[in-house]
Amino acid sequence: MTPPVVRWPERLARAALSRVVEPGELAIGRLVAAHGAEAAWFAVRSRDPAVGAEVLALTRARVDAARPEQDLAALDAWGGRLVCPGDDEWPRGADDLGDARPLGLWVRGRQQLGEACGRAVAIVGARAATGYGEHVAGEWSAQLAEAGRAVLSGAAYGIDGAAHRGALAVAGETIAVLACGVDVPYPRGHDALLARIAEQGLVVSEWPPGCAPMRHRFLTRNRVIAAATSGTVVVEAAARSGSLNTARSALRLDRAVMVVPGPVTSAMSVGSNALLRTEGVRAVGSVADIVEEVGRLGADLAPPVRGLTTDRDALSATVARVLDAVPVRSARGAASIAKAAGVDVNVVLGCLGPLELEGLIERSGGGYRLGPVGRPAAEARRAEAAGA
Amino acid sequence: MTPPVVRWPERLARAALSRVVEPGELAIGRLVAAHGAEAAWFAVRSRDPAVGAEVLALTRARVDAARPEQDLAALDAWGGRLVCPGDDEWPRGADDLGDARPLGLWVRGRQQLGEACGRAVAIVGARAATGYGEHVAGEWSAQLAEAGRAVLSGAAYGIDGAAHRGALAVAGETIAVLACGVDVPYPRGHDALLARIAEQGLVVSEWPPGCAPMRHRFLTRNRVIAAATSGTVVVEAAARSGSLNTARSALRLDRAVMVVPGPVTSAMSVGSNALLRTEGVRAVGSVADIVEEVGRLGADLAPPVRGLTTDRDALSATVARVLDAVPVRSARGAASIAKAAGVDVNVVLGCLGPLELEGLIERSGGGYRLGPVGRPAAEARRAEAAGA
Repeated sequence: MTPPVVRWPERLARAALSRVVEPGELAIGRLVAAHGAEAAWFAVRSRDPAVGAEVLALTRARVDAARPEQDLAALDAWGGRLVCPGDDEWPRGADDLGDARPLGLWVRGRQQLGEACGRAVAIVGARAATGYGEHVAGEWSAQLAEAGRAVLSGAAYGIDGAAHRGALAVAGETIAVLACGVDVPYPRGHDALLARIAEQGLVVSEWPPGCAPMRHRFLTRNRVIAAATSGTVVVEAAARSGSLNTARSALRLDRAVMVVPGPVTSAMSVGSNALLRTEGVRAVGSVADIVEEVGRLGADLAPPVRGLTTDRDALSATVARVLDAVPVRSARGAASIAKAAGVDVNVVLGCLGPLELEGLIERSGGGYRLGPVGRPAAEARRAEAAGA
Repeated sequence: MTPPVVRWPERLARAALSRVVEPGELAIGRLVAAHGAEAAWFAVRSRDPAVGAEVLALTRARVDAARPEQDLAALDAWGGRLVCPGDDEWPRGADDLGDARPLGLWVRGRQQLGEACGRAVAIVGARAATGYGEHVAGEWSAQLAEAGRAVLSGAAYGIDGAAHRGALAVAGETIAVLACGVDVPYPRGHDALLARIAEQGLVVSEWPPGCAPMRHRFLTRNRVIAAATSGTVVVEAAARSGSLNTARSALRLDRAVMVVPGPVTSAMSVGSNALLRTEGVRAVGSVADIVEEVGRLGADLAPPVRGLTTDRDALSATVARVLDAVPVRSARGAASIAKAAGVDVNVVLGCLGPLELEGLIERSGGGYRLGPVGRPAAEARRAEAAGA
């Protein structure tokens, strides 16, 4: 574990503030950004009117409930810690949330949080997932983990659980971001799963120990899932699924948003398929597609689906022979192509129109040469045939 | 049936040329565009060197095989006709093919071709379709036909057949565009289906009677499917499916290209799902989505999937009450909102951050009002409640 770099008083202040206000409050974020967490907490605690009516109102109800030393000690007993902005292991992506940035992240687990998030892809989706969705979430998470990625999700039933389990099954890295304290076993049925994630990966929350999950907290939490990762994959989502909210957060943050297409006859794919009609959302058909989307430019390119990059496969053997006889760069007439292909010139003439339409060949001077569609594939093929 | 307006000699010339050259030949298209079909055919028939070496080479092999009167009589005996550019029932969309425009379209059936194409959506896909694909093709085609649209397809096994049958089942309009003569029963197993289409809808081809289907002709034919309709829906397509070629033609012609998402675990959806990653291709989840894509601006808008247009559905009852208390335009402070909502001011303050993050509310002066996301839905809701 990386040693923290944020000083103790600031850590205490952030722990206190995270108990007193709900995360994501812009007024609190602005106050902390302007004066630092220590001064902000001092002002809040002393009910300094200078913080403004809004901050006073936001903090009044719980200001006396703050117990930062106790919360930090509780986490310590669980082998956990509070990771703060400025700490080495702070996930840089969270800074894109601006004034809605978490005050801190309560963490259980041995991995370095920032590095794990740097490798992470979010896999989210429906609680009431189908076998199809759970299969894809589990299988792809395992493949992502095996490819050295971390799988981040929300520990809910359904897709989230399948995603965490897929990574755990191959001894991979997985991160659960909760909408309650990291010591709260929610959902109940995922008690053992959460313990395994804390053991093998990371369990993370903005809420201090003991906080209960509340409906609005899931919406607040979703922005952290989106911000902490470089891309979010929605596996299955009904029309009103919360994972659509995560996807929208990711879009606002300029993260890659990917959707696993599903049958239009499945209610659990209505929301995810509809998301495909949103600007900037991509359909992914494999882990290679995901890696391409989140990967750096040029690296990690997904292998193209055969038959999509060239129309050559759809051609008859004769037409393919004619096409093979068309030069890459210098044009050649129909008679010369016919001779090279060993077919009648009329056959060649019958092929030229369709091939030209498809962009596989193009007219040049009095003859034909390969067109924009045909050229790259043919060059590779001929280089290979020549043993290059 | 609309009376033709193209004169007999031009019709004969087009019938003759369509026997002598494969459709889509740009050199022939240019010749006809420059001099008219009659003069073009006269020059070709008399082997006039002025047409250029390419046209001579393209036409040499079959120029003596032309038998336009006989072909037109044959079609007439089948209750068919040759529809030419300039005829009232010529489908205007075909003109977008430029010099690759068909010389004419051989047609069987009673409907007016141009009007039918004007109402038509192309539904295409895999021959080796799955039950899922055939179900969607059949069901949606029936719904499209019931909504007054025509369903155009290629009469192949699988998706094409299911699409035609879906329209026929509701006594709807359907158009089959073939890659062989309209009198050729291909594929064999669709003999009866083609007869029903000719009876209830239209069977169309660029090739004169008796022409056999050849592999390259399917590629040539696909451009007509794309051009004659305002949109093409790909239901299922394997990685190397010919329907991907139709989709690409439609994209080049600026037609709407739509894909039915399918399970990523199905080989029959690999090509169609991959097409979703192409610029300009939309995922459709229902017939309403299709009608919206091909429909005119403003009309035919698909009902939004609930929960995608507003985040309001995902909110707890209390948060929803708070949101309801936020004014549409003039801002109001937290205390006033609390009073209106009948909840404690601290509850209100706890909600404001997440609501603001979601764009449901926005800060204005010292208070809050509905934000860009929340406003349109709320206005409609309140107008309705007020009986407006």
